[in-house]
Amino acid sequence: MPLGQKTGDSRYCGVETQFEDDIAKLLASNINGCFDFILPPLMDPTYRPSLASNENGAGVPPFSGSDLVLSPSQWSSHVVGKISSWIDLDSEDQVLRMDSEITLKQEIAWASHLSLQACLLPPPRGTSCANYARCVNQILQGLNKMQLWLRVPLEKSDNDAMEGDTNHLSGGPVDSWDCWNSFRVLCEHHSQLSIALDVLSSLPSGNSLGRWFGEPVKSAIIHTNAFLTNAKGYPCLSKRHQKLLVEFFNHSIQIVISGGPVHNTSTENVPTNYIDGKFLKACSIFCIDGHPLRSYLDYIGHLYQRMDPLPEQERFELSYRDFLQSPLQPLMDNLEAQTYETFEKDVVKYSQYQRAVSKALMDRVPDEDACTTTTVLMVVGAGRGPLVRASLQAAEETGRKLKVYAVEKNPNAVVTLHSLVKLEGWENTVTIVSSDMRCWDALRKLIYWYVSELLGSFGDNELSPECLDGAQRFLKDNGISIPSSYTSFLQPVTASKLYNDVKSHNDLVQFETAYVVKLHSVAKLSPSQPVFTFSHPEHSTKKSNQRYKKLRFEIPSDTGSAMVHGFAGYFDATLYKDVHLGIEPSIATPNMFSWFAIFFPLRTPICVRPDSPLEVHFWRCCSSTKVWYEWCVTSPSSSAIHNCNGRSYWVGL
Amino acid sequence: MPLGQKTGDSRYCGVETQFEDDIAKLLASNINGCFDFILPPLMDPTYRPSLASNENGAGVPPFSGSDLVLSPSQWSSHVVGKISSWIDLDSEDQVLRMDSEITLKQEIAWASHLSLQACLLPPPRGTSCANYARCVNQILQGLNKMQLWLRVPLEKSDNDAMEGDTNHLSGGPVDSWDCWNSFRVLCEHHSQLSIALDVLSSLPSGNSLGRWFGEPVKSAIIHTNAFLTNAKGYPCLSKRHQKLLVEFFNHSIQIVISGGPVHNTSTENVPTNYIDGKFLKACSIFCIDGHPLRSYLDYIGHLYQRMDPLPEQERFELSYRDFLQSPLQPLMDNLEAQTYETFEKDVVKYSQYQRAVSKALMDRVPDEDACTTTTVLMVVGAGRGPLVRASLQAAEETGRKLKVYAVEKNPNAVVTLHSLVKLEGWENTVTIVSSDMRCWDALRKLIYWYVSELLGSFGDNELSPECLDGAQRFLKDNGISIPSSYTSFLQPVTASKLYNDVKSHNDLVQFETAYVVKLHSVAKLSPSQPVFTFSHPEHSTKKSNQRYKKLRFEIPSDTGSAMVHGFAGYFDATLYKDVHLGIEPSIATPNMFSWFAIFFPLRTPICVRPDSPLEVHFWRCCSSTKVWYEWCVTSPSSSAIHNCNGRSYWVGL
Repeated sequence: MPLGQKTGDSRYCGVETQFEDDIAKLLASNINGCFDFILPPLMDPTYRPSLASNENGAGVPPFSGSDLVLSPSQWSSHVVGKISSWIDLDSEDQVLRMDSEITLKQEIAWASHLSLQACLLPPPRGTSCANYARCVNQILQGLNKMQLWLRVPLEKSDNDAMEGDTNHLSGGPVDSWDCWNSFRVLCEHHSQLSIALDVLSSLPSGNSLGRWFGEPVKSAIIHTNAFLTNAKGYPCLSKRHQKLLVEFFNHSIQIVISGGPVHNTSTENVPTNYIDGKFLKACSIFCIDGHPLRSYLDYIGHLYQRMDPLPEQERFELSYRDFLQSPLQPLMDNLEAQTYETFEKDVVKYSQYQRAVSKALMDRVPDEDACTTTTVLMVVGAGRGPLVRASLQAAEETGRKLKVYAVEKNPNAVVTLHSLVKLEGWENTVTIVSSDMRCWDALRKLIYWYVSELLGSFGDNELSPECLDGAQRFLKDNGISIPSSYTSFLQPVTASKLYNDVKSHNDLVQFETAYVVKLHSVAKLSPSQPVFTFSHPEHSTKKSNQRYKKLRFEIPSDTGSAMVHGFAGYFDATLYKDVHLGIEPSIATPNMFSWFAIFFPLRTPICVRPDSPLEVHFWRCCSSTKVWYEWCVTSPSSSAIHNCNGRSYWVGL
Repeated sequence: MPLGQKTGDSRYCGVETQFEDDIAKLLASNINGCFDFILPPLMDPTYRPSLASNENGAGVPPFSGSDLVLSPSQWSSHVVGKISSWIDLDSEDQVLRMDSEITLKQEIAWASHLSLQACLLPPPRGTSCANYARCVNQILQGLNKMQLWLRVPLEKSDNDAMEGDTNHLSGGPVDSWDCWNSFRVLCEHHSQLSIALDVLSSLPSGNSLGRWFGEPVKSAIIHTNAFLTNAKGYPCLSKRHQKLLVEFFNHSIQIVISGGPVHNTSTENVPTNYIDGKFLKACSIFCIDGHPLRSYLDYIGHLYQRMDPLPEQERFELSYRDFLQSPLQPLMDNLEAQTYETFEKDVVKYSQYQRAVSKALMDRVPDEDACTTTTVLMVVGAGRGPLVRASLQAAEETGRKLKVYAVEKNPNAVVTLHSLVKLEGWENTVTIVSSDMRCWDALRKLIYWYVSELLGSFGDNELSPECLDGAQRFLKDNGISIPSSYTSFLQPVTASKLYNDVKSHNDLVQFETAYVVKLHSVAKLSPSQPVFTFSHPEHSTKKSNQRYKKLRFEIPSDTGSAMVHGFAGYFDATLYKDVHLGIEPSIATPNMFSWFAIFFPLRTPICVRPDSPLEVHFWRCCSSTKVWYEWCVTSPSSSAIHNCNGRSYWVGL
């Protein structure tokens, strides 16, 4: 029974169990106890291949029952297989190593046979996990759809620092993230290798926790001794644990409860038949209060129920989360009606434009001249007219007189524009120009202002600079542009999901393309920094739209090391004076939905440690036919230069 | 005129010159002065695009003459273009940066038009060279066959450490190798990007120098002030410089002399017409003594002439240097007659075998039993009979009686074997068994010894362990094997040439294959370490031919950082007691030519710093049909596991 439903999306909770010969009974007792799935060892933990005599059943490994004891759908919906936790593939003891390899392969083969959705791999021991990774990597090559969840403790462990291992430069305790990172790099970022986080009573810093939300965490295992006790003796969690769980819910991470009950909840709720760590008999076919971990489950359910519902916009964007889209080519291609439709609905955006035009009108035309002075304004890329409307509303609001030239290159949009003008009775104020503003040449120096909405997620990436260069010819010498300037921003991110999606194409072109994406399962490793700024109008004689920027990011020292899979890009635009518009997270315009972020991937993710800054270079390059970005990393180590000569990704002029 | 000819291979010497409008005159004066090529600036060094007026010749850049002033073959054979040394693509000054980019692209385009073989790029300035690399990388994509030689000073420079750059963890002076490494990684190891080393008066340590011989160094520019003065006032070089030059000659690196004459050689040799750094008039059509740098050239020529000639074997192997070959599949395929022919010529190898058999015979059979005791020996994989011959010679030498079973699976070799036995009259001593030793089953427990030569460059890589396991059944309980054991060795190497050859296939399979190769342009970064050992016979009940080894290499601290492109592999075998045979460099059997080394590439080369050890894992994996290696690096950073499940490279059983 799910924890509850929010916005059509259920969250489940499982329970880690001991080995049990009779898995049907084990499942029944726990499902009836309201857990959604169980996480039992698949094989008798005392089994060792090297000690096994062939007498018992002619070499049949001691699995928990045959495949027939549960139905196929029970196996796949309600059981996650737990791989024997005694295995140690990096032991110095060769017999143990060989036993571990045989057992691991037997168990995974068995779990595949049962079509389980996932198996839980025990955590790597110590700092060296190469042989474990080699074995798992071999398994992954031929695996069906099953996920392998590598169990990783969510804390820095001091265990191995004692062993005099000089492998780690820091000399400090081993960070479990490093172990995970080594493991997944050895396994080539395989998409079926994911993480089950072990949540214990102490938690690392917020920055350190944050890294994991860019990693493929599928499950969080909460130990009962991570719970506190509330005034009534019931389990509860610390504020930080609560916050973490909410994040888990937000990221569709399944919760598993592990360990025995450590709270004496009141007698009416404690099952009397809980003996020797097993709870069996009293379970009926319905959910009852009898499961010994019921109070923990209830608390988890309570946290889930208590969550604020998603805002409507977020709910609308759920299906876009972490879904890579190629950026538009608005200059080369004509947008479709549906696209106009979507973008025109962004009320917030146009009200910002209206505010900007209003302010500019008030500045330009004193009250006393309101009736006599007409401002000539050109909407550059008018589309189906939303900026025309916003401008006219600004004129009305301020009582100023306006004449509008609406320039639009898409002949299909011009059709709509004409009917809009007719419908609204704007014939005397609005002149429609069906032309590319870079070619049109009629109104030289007659325009006071131009207003445009040519910005992409990364500001200049839809060639606003080149378009406005074309429009600048029409502008009076003291004319202005709305927006008056815009700046792109970048920040390094952990984004294993996006990286794997890019990688799945197995093609250089994909690794050298920037994608528009609603970022969700992403860890932002450092505040974003400004990259390229364009101001309009630009009267400099040496004007160039080429840009080069070197950025240096520092990872906060309490983060630990982190993997940079690429860069999240944003923009912020100054429309007029203090009226701005943008998606840079720290200053984003609220409730605007026209832009998702942009994502620049790295062909080879780069591991960054807090003590060595990440140095990144971005270029905006221009030729006579196209504009493109190139990018690279030079510290802590150099990457290849991505998208050389725009070979993979470019925007056509 | 070449410095001289050795073993059919010429070495040339060039000279760096100033800019000269009349390049024909410049070339004539220097060629007549006995240099083979000149290295002049292609463009007037005072030219700056941003300052150029379009008046002079309507925007024609001030190149040194038109393409017609020299013949096409003169351009390509005698001129290496020097790119303007004032360019600075990473300057903070945007105008200088743009001027630099324009000039660089103009000059390279001009040099391509002239079909020059190479251009010399000025050294990167400072620690940051990303924009320079980006521009060169763009150029490389569309370049004809021309090489770009990046000028790199052969010393640690302290220049940039002063600028408060915190980029380098060490905090010490900037190592020019790091700069080169960053540049070439940014340019994706492009095969047309190579190095011209600037050799100055001081030299870094031998280990630091050694790194460069695994890098694509095409030219060494020796500055006149790097020369010392001998008793007669003539230029000469320090012992270390001499040694370095000999290495340059050995690696086909072209020498260029740079700078003005700083030695007052006796008056009869000094040209009287040397004025203002230019030497022009006195040159005749023949080589004369008049060139102001003639004494430097003579000294370089003298060093070259003085070199020891290559030993015959090295000369024979010249064409194999750094040439990748796929390892043999001797079990699956039958060798050809030519292959037998080649290997049988290895006198040293068979004399080692003869020594081993002799010693073993003396040990087993006391003098008093020499006439009565017959030793039964099986040659496992007899081929066309060289080991049969060596064994019989050992018997004759020691006066012991021998009976030989020659087992060979290749029916074609058996034909030769039969005629050999007939020819030599060995019918009573030698029994030929035409069978795979793994299948044959006639002589159980009758054999005292078996002798085999089944080793590959990496010892067990031609499946000697599996073959001898098969042969072991025939062996008496106290029987022995010659070889009694063998061990493989590995060491990390810089090998840019090999890496680029592997990369050129643009295929994962090539990156996961081990190659047999005569290593030459390779820098060995750390002494080799033993990997897998096999001993025969092996009576253990838990016997397995699977192996796993973790190796940790330290790079000497005076090396500086270095690129590991992969691992060189060797073997050493103990034939009998102290008689060994092998190719591990420090203990290699001299004058043996049957084996080249083996090379295991890395898909992504790993940069290793002296303070962080290189941790490497190698596995020998076995299935019922094949044997393969997997390998990976886990420190300083993790690589992917190479050749998972033997997907790319395996040896069939």
